[in-house]
Amino acid sequence: MLGSDYPGQVCSLARSLEVIGERWTLLILRDVFTGIRRFDELVHSLGIARTVLTRRLDALVADGVLERRAYQARPVRYEFVPTAKGQELVDVVALLMRWGDTHYPHPAGPPRQLLHHDCGGHAVPHLACSDCGQELDLNNIEARLNPALA
Amino acid sequence: MLGSDYPGQVCSLARSLEVIGERWTLLILRDVFTGIRRFDELVHSLGIARTVLTRRLDALVADGVLERRAYQARPVRYEFVPTAKGQELVDVVALLMRWGDTHYPHPAGPPRQLLHHDCGGHAVPHLACSDCGQELDLNNIEARLNPALA
Repeated sequence: MLGSDYPGQVCSLARSLEVIGERWTLLILRDVFTGIRRFDELVHSLGIARTVLTRRLDALVADGVLERRAYQARPVRYEFVPTAKGQELVDVVALLMRWGDTHYPHPAGPPRQLLHHDCGGHAVPHLACSDCGQELDLNNIEARLNPALA
Repeated sequence: MLGSDYPGQVCSLARSLEVIGERWTLLILRDVFTGIRRFDELVHSLGIARTVLTRRLDALVADGVLERRAYQARPVRYEFVPTAKGQELVDVVALLMRWGDTHYPHPAGPPRQLLHHDCGGHAVPHLACSDCGQELDLNNIEARLNPALA
């Protein structure tokens, strides 16, 4: 297992994985993105032990990825809503869905199809450059080290 | 821990996470994408136990994400090169780097800056629609269930 501080690593990815680098977490995010947000609904959808789910949800709330909201007063019941920071991770979930559909296809086709409301199209997400809008792949990008950290 | 078969789950993301849903795996991919591909270089870069690295690399080769290539004959030494299927995951790594830079910034700035060769720009990757090219976020996409699997 990775330690919690990645000694010697100055890496944005490593810091992200401290928060979400665990399989349950991305499945929890998948569910809250699609509207499955109540504790009991999440237990049912994920088939996860309640103690494990509680621990993961607490960590995601502490890290500001999810927000806990009471939806019922007596007894108090909570739902878990993605924050703005959490909502940004929809791109990671979408790309991993696409990768799964491509390489581990289900015989009946993709379990979920992404629709883009604005254009009405079947959106196949891809990575694009913020400057020119062109699609990015490993052959046209370079990760240059920050000289201040070299 | 998740079982290896996610009983009852028909989910592209869950299938992807079977292969790469573990923190070391994405850090290994980060390294092979930036050219750190030899076993001993990976041990040094990651600070990972050799037995753990061997197990992760074997799994990634078995799943067709990495390819093992001999770069030296006596004694035989291997490097690990991303396959086409593995190269596709650069988008996930790039988005998680960006998310880490945004929410867990390093005082000296982003450790690595992505440059887009084709336009010369500092690429901030984002998710775009394959149909219209517009940026996608949680508010303008919908994941519709495949009726054949409902």
